[in-house]
Amino acid sequence: MAVHTPAIGLNPWVTSLAAPAVPAVAAWAQAYDGAQGPLLGFSQAVPGYPPHARILQRLADLAADPQTCQYGDIEGEPALRSALADWMARIYGIHPGAAQIQITSGCNQAFAVAMQVMARAGDAVALVEPYYFNHQSTLQSMGIEIKTVQAHAENGFLPTVADVAQVLEQGVKALVLISPNNPTGAVYSPELLEQLADLCQRHGCWLVLDETYRDFLPAGTVPHRLLERPNWQQHIVLLYSFSKSFCVPGHRLGALIAGETFQAETCKVMDNLQICAPRLPQLAIAQALGDPVIHDWLSANRDEIARRAQAMREAFASLQQAGQTGWQISAIGAYFAFVRHPLAHADSVQVARKLAQECGLLTIPGEFFGPGQGAYLRVAFANAGVDVIEKIPERIGLLAVPSQVSK
Amino acid sequence: MAVHTPAIGLNPWVTSLAAPAVPAVAAWAQAYDGAQGPLLGFSQAVPGYPPHARILQRLADLAADPQTCQYGDIEGEPALRSALADWMARIYGIHPGAAQIQITSGCNQAFAVAMQVMARAGDAVALVEPYYFNHQSTLQSMGIEIKTVQAHAENGFLPTVADVAQVLEQGVKALVLISPNNPTGAVYSPELLEQLADLCQRHGCWLVLDETYRDFLPAGTVPHRLLERPNWQQHIVLLYSFSKSFCVPGHRLGALIAGETFQAETCKVMDNLQICAPRLPQLAIAQALGDPVIHDWLSANRDEIARRAQAMREAFASLQQAGQTGWQISAIGAYFAFVRHPLAHADSVQVARKLAQECGLLTIPGEFFGPGQGAYLRVAFANAGVDVIEKIPERIGLLAVPSQVSK
Repeated sequence: MAVHTPAIGLNPWVTSLAAPAVPAVAAWAQAYDGAQGPLLGFSQAVPGYPPHARILQRLADLAADPQTCQYGDIEGEPALRSALADWMARIYGIHPGAAQIQITSGCNQAFAVAMQVMARAGDAVALVEPYYFNHQSTLQSMGIEIKTVQAHAENGFLPTVADVAQVLEQGVKALVLISPNNPTGAVYSPELLEQLADLCQRHGCWLVLDETYRDFLPAGTVPHRLLERPNWQQHIVLLYSFSKSFCVPGHRLGALIAGETFQAETCKVMDNLQICAPRLPQLAIAQALGDPVIHDWLSANRDEIARRAQAMREAFASLQQAGQTGWQISAIGAYFAFVRHPLAHADSVQVARKLAQECGLLTIPGEFFGPGQGAYLRVAFANAGVDVIEKIPERIGLLAVPSQVSK
Repeated sequence: MAVHTPAIGLNPWVTSLAAPAVPAVAAWAQAYDGAQGPLLGFSQAVPGYPPHARILQRLADLAADPQTCQYGDIEGEPALRSALADWMARIYGIHPGAAQIQITSGCNQAFAVAMQVMARAGDAVALVEPYYFNHQSTLQSMGIEIKTVQAHAENGFLPTVADVAQVLEQGVKALVLISPNNPTGAVYSPELLEQLADLCQRHGCWLVLDETYRDFLPAGTVPHRLLERPNWQQHIVLLYSFSKSFCVPGHRLGALIAGETFQAETCKVMDNLQICAPRLPQLAIAQALGDPVIHDWLSANRDEIARRAQAMREAFASLQQAGQTGWQISAIGAYFAFVRHPLAHADSVQVARKLAQECGLLTIPGEFFGPGQGAYLRVAFANAGVDVIEKIPERIGLLAVPSQVSK
């Protein structure tokens, strides 16, 4: 019976992918001996504070209810779709309507579903580099060609309209943007988004905007006017995550906002992938979205994250004052700072690995966000309080000199 | 600004899919006026009883803990992977090892992930018809060609080894089996599975076995000996769902059992799709798997489902005795009966729609499981108690005569 056969081949679109970034970086931290104090974790973007007690209480109450254990609608819980639409109306001044909302199991899934609805193997999609690594790997795993638009540091890590136009002219199914950006923190202005939406419409491609970090924009900001565009449903798709704002990444909850024609297709893909997003967090967050106490808590969190951004600026200013002039924040916003390191002869992977293993400071190397990003590190500063951020300069100061790094 | 452009095209691999089956069938029930009594729902496969109180209590306790809200490992919670491996050792007599288990957000996801790891657009995968509709639609949405092996009623709805061989000779990346089967309930014997595994090994393709309904096999059954095969990791992948056994479909929890080389690729796809399965149900079910009270409850549920199967047999015997000889159970097992209807001139969609709209009896038409299945209906009899199953003959008796059905 023991027939000898060679190992059966796997999908090269998957085998050619790098191992997932966050665990790869976390593995470096295993080698840190604690000599410089506790590990400072600024790699994975996670809220550094727990969910509000009312959210935990709702989760617990609903979890005890057998109804919560039953299958829900593929599109998502009506209560959550409706509550998110109402909440979006407060932010954008436009009510998208619950029918235009699909609930997903996190924003990575919202992206994967959107891509599958728009594009098939052999099609092309445009990403802005530096890109979010899971956008790149998801497209690669689907056999979709990635066309890259460079965002340059001197342009605040935003792409120029001319550069985007040049890529769209080559024929793509979608232009994917993230604002506030992951990994740079750069914020796209409503005007720039409008110009890019015009461009997409003219070139017959979708504008996909990932707004995972939207709730950390300054109070009162209107992120964009895209929902005011006539027939926005025919060229715009928005992605959202509940993970960061509501501190529930482990429950996996996101959303995809698009026209009803698009959502009819989304629904098929969601049904295939997992029938429906988990019901418990949907029901709990639906209640939270209508609770003024939670609204105040969200505002307070936004202010706290702004304080952490300020602490980041001060930390790097102090490094400069200490003569470490090569370390600088190239862009900062919402959850992230994109930090330039001075080690010209070292690539960012070497720098990040040494920072993790020797200094107990966990960041993600720029190269994980694109081949041209070796001069940078992503610091997910929302992860920890001001007191922890203040320790960053000391840890960076421990880094061995360039000649030792670039071994 | 309002540039006029035609609607942007979507992925034809998705737009060509039928709308999801379960909601399509549920929509028919909306037209039922209740005249014959309450709607009898036998369409979606769901446990017709709640989770054990201890599971609900654990879910509630863990939901209140902020730790549960944090991201978990991509592979799944170590506690659940380990508990599932231990539990599998009790069933199969072989311990697969926690490292060979990937936790997913339901078994549909486990299937989608397995397919993406094995095959890309343009490759072929073999399904046995009647197939589970989401297997068909998932593959179609990925641009993977489906090669069908017919399972004939006269062979107990199992494929013959010769028929499978003929399809594998054409070159496929995987043979997908479901045992106990959805939609027919047919159970593959360990011997047949062994022969098919040999065949897959010889032809260099994966054997993917979906065991969602395994826990409803008779007590003491060893479903197969596939884990005893030398190097099973090189040609076998098992899929599992916690939804049916633990009554938690709304929490979305499944598993993919495969070798570590395979799982390294699974992990990349899971990271792209949703980072990790939701943590709460993982932690709760890990505890349940080690609880003797839950083991007893699972046994009692298996016995109850067997009683429902017996009630199904008796219900259809009574139809025969009443002269309705055309209605018969063609196959039955675990959660499902595949029932032949006598309306030769009507297709199964017409019959199922009329049963739903006029008789308040919800089933899924055979054609949803393959173009050759128009003579059948799938009855998911685990959904309701014996007292409800006993009402089936009366409802079927209300069905209009053939000439009226085939309008």
